[in-house]
Formats: sequence, structure tokens, C-alpha cells
Amino acid sequence: MTPEEFKAAGYRVIDWIADYRAGIEARAVMAKTAPGDVKAMLPASPPRRPESFDAILADLDRVVMPGITNWQHPRFFGYFPANALLSSVLGDCVSTGLGVNGLAWQASPALTEVEEVVTDWLRQMLGLSEAWSGVINDTASTSTLVALLCARERASQYSLAGGGLQSEAKPLVVYASAHSHSSVEKAALLAGFGKTNVRVVPQEGSHAMRAESLASMVSEDIRDGRVPCAVVATAGTTTSTALDPIEAIARVATANNMWLHVDAAMAGSAMILPECRWMWEGVEHADSLIVNPHKWLGAVFDCTIYFIRDPEHLVRVMSTNPSYLKTQADGRVKNYRDWGLPLGRRFRALKLWFLIREQGVEGLQTRLRRDLDNAKWLAAEIGKTPNWTVLAPVPLQTLCIRHEPAGLIGEALDKHTLDWAGRVNQSGEAYVTPAMLDGRWVVRVSIGAELTEREHVQQLWQLLQDLVR
Amino acid sequence: MTPEEFKAAGYRVIDWIADYRAGIEARAVMAKTAPGDVKAMLPASPPRRPESFDAILADLDRVVMPGITNWQHPRFFGYFPANALLSSVLGDCVSTGLGVNGLAWQASPALTEVEEVVTDWLRQMLGLSEAWSGVINDTASTSTLVALLCARERASQYSLAGGGLQSEAKPLVVYASAHSHSSVEKAALLAGFGKTNVRVVPQEGSHAMRAESLASMVSEDIRDGRVPCAVVATAGTTTSTALDPIEAIARVATANNMWLHVDAAMAGSAMILPECRWMWEGVEHADSLIVNPHKWLGAVFDCTIYFIRDPEHLVRVMSTNPSYLKTQADGRVKNYRDWGLPLGRRFRALKLWFLIREQGVEGLQTRLRRDLDNAKWLAAEIGKTPNWTVLAPVPLQTLCIRHEPAGLIGEALDKHTLDWAGRVNQSGEAYVTPAMLDGRWVVRVSIGAELTEREHVQQLWQLLQDLVR
Repeated sequence: MTPEEFKAAGYRVIDWIADYRAGIEARAVMAKTAPGDVKAMLPASPPRRPESFDAILADLDRVVMPGITNWQHPRFFGYFPANALLSSVLGDCVSTGLGVNGLAWQASPALTEVEEVVTDWLRQMLGLSEAWSGVINDTASTSTLVALLCARERASQYSLAGGGLQSEAKPLVVYASAHSHSSVEKAALLAGFGKTNVRVVPQEGSHAMRAESLASMVSEDIRDGRVPCAVVATAGTTTSTALDPIEAIARVATANNMWLHVDAAMAGSAMILPECRWMWEGVEHADSLIVNPHKWLGAVFDCTIYFIRDPEHLVRVMSTNPSYLKTQADGRVKNYRDWGLPLGRRFRALKLWFLIREQGVEGLQTRLRRDLDNAKWLAAEIGKTPNWTVLAPVPLQTLCIRHEPAGLIGEALDKHTLDWAGRVNQSGEAYVTPAMLDGRWVVRVSIGAELTEREHVQQLWQLLQDLVR
Repeated sequence: MTPEEFKAAGYRVIDWIADYRAGIEARAVMAKTAPGDVKAMLPASPPRRPESFDAILADLDRVVMPGITNWQHPRFFGYFPANALLSSVLGDCVSTGLGVNGLAWQASPALTEVEEVVTDWLRQMLGLSEAWSGVINDTASTSTLVALLCARERASQYSLAGGGLQSEAKPLVVYASAHSHSSVEKAALLAGFGKTNVRVVPQEGSHAMRAESLASMVSEDIRDGRVPCAVVATAGTTTSTALDPIEAIARVATANNMWLHVDAAMAGSAMILPECRWMWEGVEHADSLIVNPHKWLGAVFDCTIYFIRDPEHLVRVMSTNPSYLKTQADGRVKNYRDWGLPLGRRFRALKLWFLIREQGVEGLQTRLRRDLDNAKWLAAEIGKTPNWTVLAPVPLQTLCIRHEPAGLIGEALDKHTLDWAGRVNQSGEAYVTPAMLDGRWVVRVSIGAELTEREHVQQLWQLLQDLVR
């Protein structure tokens, strides 16, 4: 494809995206595809000869689109708001078109320096002190793994440079709450700690970690000859956006020389609102912190910011310096390859840079406040409706709700909950995610897609009431 | 930004990319920016109010572009060919515009199923048997970490489900050659093996791993009470595209129940040419294998394929299954979140799907054969020129060369090499990467950018001869 052909085809792709977004409300939210439907429409073998761009675009509509669940739909209330604002989409398209790779500063200085500046912009927007440095990773899962590797290496005094984790005399222990994200346990297991060294700290009634329990579990582990290594506190848990008491957890961590990692993948975006910052009080005592602009804030996936206070330690854990990556500038610049797992690096900063500039901080703040208001409104409506319950505090934009007809309890109630949630999703009118809370199924309503206005929340609420009948 | 505004701005972005690509040859290959230059042009704080798209695009030219090293330039001979063919760029733009996330099959069935099909297309293109299943990861670094974690867990009989790596009685050992990529040692250290358990297997004269040495090191480790866990063989090393003898290495691995991971990040693309497949003879005995379509093949970064023979083992190592990710379809579908590190997942298959269809297998083959011919031509030219040497076999498209004026040896020769390589890069006319080979600096010339024709290789060769004078 020549640049001239690219222009013609590119306009069609832009039109296609614009039309998709403009008409998204008319689509079913969840794909109605059965397993294997998409696969069955694709040739089993690759084409030997070139195909026309017409044919490819036609298959996009014919094969792919029926199998798409529309995350940008105004009645997408599942998982989390995965906003991909159109300015951010264009920033990412520029990155893709440039086709540069930031495996060293010299390999494209602007890639590194725009990333330095824009992660620092975000730091300021979140009200964090100058002690933090940021780097863009793909996901929170990967970043949490990096955090626990850093914790492991600090506690073991760089066992990676010697005999490895096996050479440690005492078991290292990681602590998190039952409501921490699944990626936390996964990261701990992959980092080699082992399931018997991962502690689930009990929760308060509000589904937040109980700091007193953490303290006593830590004492017990020390008494039994183990080494408390790291604790992960969550600002905005996945199920109910519960807020772990970071300040109290930090006191335990500091007293016991443990690494404190704060998972603010979800709630982090809200910290651009000064009135929300009480939610992560104590965050300045953490060693590492993640925020996902690819969730509520609006940067198209993937864009997780990993903030750290001690970049030298991170580099000591992650650095490799083979001859073929050395350049004349190395001593004077950041080489982000030494700040995380992958060597290769897309120009991800562009999508965040485009987003923040096109929206302005105030534009982003206005949208997030709209969503918080919508969540409050829905919680109030549900709270005053018979047989409906909101089951957890709603500090942000996610509600855990249940329809509880008189006399329905236990597994029968679970069946009812999963039934009506399934009907909501099958209807195509809205999408919600069920989850377990206090041993029973609830339905999560996660508000905050860019296009979600009050009317869409009202439509959802009407739909729920209609479908449980 | 509304869809209508996006259309207008999007056309300008498409024009911008087309013009960038059309005019790329007139640009200096390497950015002439000094450290801090780009940063100094950016505001220290984010804008409170929205800015116009005009302002953003203007800064792209004013601030970003002087700091870009042009990887798509026809005289880019550095690192590796990081081709981002324009059809692949458009596939990725569609993915970005859709803004969907494949954290479960149901979260966008097409995302998962197109990935299943297109990775299987690639399997067929590479001449691999049906025993292999593929998944798209971001990079080879991450995939190698996944491979060594799988190896660790197989050797330790799932220590992650128990006491972790610390509970293993005997040290686990990983083997690779001195010419394996830096990400191999990094992955081994992050997986917790420890540097004293990472063996560097000596090389043959051709810079490939010596299988006999591997066998004797493995025996020695067993004798000393250690457990050989994994060996990484490289098809196409970074410095010189040396080819480790996979068949012979596999015999050692099989005899000792070791995990064999093949790093074909670079040479993998060449396997679409049947005449190149002798280079990874024995690959069918491997447990895992990586190929980077984002290198020579032409899919825009990031796109690494991780092929495995035992998906059940992979899932057992990587799986988490919290309630909020469960769906009604789970038992009948692939959930790729359990095939690697990150939970969230872009629709990366589109860029590979667009590429293979727009080029056809034959189109891709023709381009790669052109590059192999160009490398042969340059090797022949250098071979017959006094004072110039090709220092390693050239099975693919990378040459390790040196200008060796009479009497210049040792550090003086190193200084001369780095001097002229620096002059090449500073000139802006071409870009090359120095590297160490056999204890001395050489200059790598990696041929294979999409736009690189014979004339560009001729221009490079003329430039080198001019600049060493």
C-alpha cells in the first residue's frame, strides 16, 4: 500500500470509525454471537494472493462487527468505563503511523521525553507530590507484577543477582484483601512467592481491608519466622470500589519495612477531582502506585501509569545493558526499557497527550463529576424502591445492586440475580457484570462511559425493573 | 470531540501520516536532538482549558518530529527492521477506534476468534505442525518471561500453588548462549532463578550455542544437586543472526526433561520462505516459541506471537477466575487472559489480519527474498573490498562488519569502529547499530525496512566508504 493508496483507504477507515461511534446507540451492547460463529466465517488458511482493501473492509462489517460487544455504548455498564475518547484515538493513530520504537532514548528521543512530561502532567492532575516518577505500561496486571518484583528484590537484598528467591532463608509474605483484583494474587504467584505466602486480610463491613487485621497477621508471620515483604492496598476495588484505609495500612508497612503498592487502577482517575482525594489519603507513603487512564479518564487502551518513588531501585531490578542497546547518550537520559518488563516500546504518550490537551483538565473534571452525580441519582432511586437494594457504599460510580423479592434467599436468590442479569445482557439494551459480594451474587452497574448521560441511566433503571418481572 | 469533528481531524491525521511516509527519505534518519530538547519545548503543566486540534497537530511538527528517529526510513539499518506496513497501520487504527477490550471471550467474541484464526494462519505460513497454538503478546521480552515461568512451574510441579520457589529443595537452572537476547537473562532473573543459576553456554565459531557444552553443563549441574529447568535456543541472534542448533539442543532438553524455548523473534519471519526452514530444524521439539511479526514481517508494533504445545499447562500457570470475570460462555471458549500476563487485551489481531490479506503470503515472501538478496549483495561487495571485513555468517539480512585499516588493532580498532558508526548516524544519511562480537566492536547493518531497495543499500555502502576516510 503506497502513501497515496493509504490516503484513500485511510479516509474510509476514519469514516468507518466516525459512523460506528455516531451510530453506536442503535447497536446491541453485547454481541449476540455464539462460540465459533466468527471463526466459522473466516477462511481456515491465509490468502496466497493480495486481497483488495474493499474485501477487507467488507469483512469487517460482515464477520467482525456481529461479534463485537460495544464498550463505547452509552448503556455499557459492565466491567469498568473503558473510555476511548476520539482525540485519544487520533493520538494513538499517529503513534501507529509513525512506527517508531523507544527501546532506547536515542531510538526516538521525543517518545521518551513526551512520556516523561505527560506522566508528570498526570501526577500534577492527581495531586501527587514531586517525589513520584511515572512510566506508561500496558496494564495494571503487568504493573502489579513489576511492583511485587521490586518488593521481592528489596526484601531479599537483590537475590536476583545471587542465588535467586530459592536462596532466601525465610519465606517472604505478600498481603492483600479478599477484594483486591485477581491480578494481585496472579502477580504474587508469578513472582514466585507461592500461594501459602499470600495472605488474604479480612475486610471491614464496607469491603475494605481491616488494617488491625493486617497488623496482627504481620506480627504472627514474623513470630513464625517469615518476612513480611509487601502489602497491596486498593483504592476502588473491582467489585464495589471499596477504599482500603491506605494511611493505616501505610503505618503497618512502614513499621515492618514492607513495600506498599497502591492499586488505584479504577479510583485513580477520580483524583483529578480535589473533592475525591480523601479516598486515597496516605498514598504519599506508598512505594508504588498504579492509575489506569485507559479506564474512566478516557485514554484508549492500553495505558497504565506506574508511579514510583525510587526509580533507581526499579532500574536496578529491571535493567539489562547489552552492547547492541548502548548509545552515546545513555548516561544523560532515561531509557524506559529499564523501567519495566518489555524492551520494545510504542509511542503511547501521544494518546494521553492528545487527550489531556483536547479536553483540558476542566473538561475531564466536568465529565467525571457528571458520572458521580449519575451514580448518586441511581443509588437514591434504587434505595427508595421496594425489593431493591444497594449492597455496598457508592463512593464513586459503581453500584452493587440486587432485586430481592420477599422470601427469596440463598441460592434461589443467586439464581434470580444471575437470571435477570443474563436477560439484561441478552436484550442488547444494556450490559452489566454480575459479581460475588459477601458470598452472594450481586449485579455491578459501572457508570462512566463517555456517552452515558442521565437519560441512559434512567433507561437502564427502567429496563431492570421491567426485566425482573 | 464528536464523530463529525473526528472525521475532519481524522482526515488530517491520515494526510499527515501519508505525507510523513511519502517524504520520509528526505528526513535525517536519526533525530539530531540533544537530551532535554523536546522536554524544554513542552509546558511544565497540563492545560486547564481545551486546546484546538490545530494547536496539537502544529506541536506534533514543531516539538515531536525533530525528536523522531525514523525507523520506516529506507536507510534505517539499525536494531532490526520494524516494519509497519500501511495496511497493518489501518488495521490497528480500526482496533483503536473500536475501543473494545478482550478480557473475556464474551467481552468481544470477534477479538478472541480472529486472534485464534490469524495466529493459526501464521502457524501455517511458518510451516509449523498443528500441534502449536498461538496467542498475541506485546513483546518477545514478555513472552520469554512467560516461557520461563511455565518452565519453572513444570519443573517445580506447580510450586506457585504451594510454598513458591523458596520451597524447592534444589536450585533450578536456566541455560542460554552468550548471544541470546538480553531479555532472556532478564526473564530468568525476574522469574526468580537468580544469576548463579543462569548458565551461559559457550559458542561455536559461528556464534551459535555449542550443544556438546550444554550437555556437559547439564550433567555437571545434575551431579552437583541442581535441576536443569529450561534452555533457550535462539534462531537469529540479535548481534549476528546466528542460528543455535535446535535439533541437537532439543536432544539434550528431552533427555533431561527440560523446557525448550525457541527465541525466533527475528528469524521467525523468514520461515514463511520454505528455503529458510533448515535454520530452525528441530523446532517441533520445543515447548514454546516466539516469532515477532512486528519486526521484518510488517505488522506494526506491538505484535509478538507466543506459540505453545501445551495450552493447558499455560492456563494452569496463568489462570485466575474471579467472579467478576465469569461469563456464561466460559466453558466453551478461549479466554486469552489466561494465556499470558495482562488481563486487558487490545484487538491486536486486526493489524495482522489486514497485513496478511492486503499483502498475501506471496507478497510477503517476495519482499523478504528481496532483502535476503540485498544482504548477500552487500556481503559480497564488502568481502571483495580491501580493509573491510564481514565478521560472521550472513544467513539472513544482518551483517556484522568492520573497517580494519592496516595496523589498527585492539582498543584503537574499537575506537575507529565506534567513531565511524557515530559519524554515519550523525550524518542523518543512514542509521546503524554497533555491537560487541568476540570481544570487539563491530557495526551491525540490519537490512529489511519495507522501503529499502538495492539502491539504498548501495548508498549506505558508498557512505560507509566515504566516512571512514
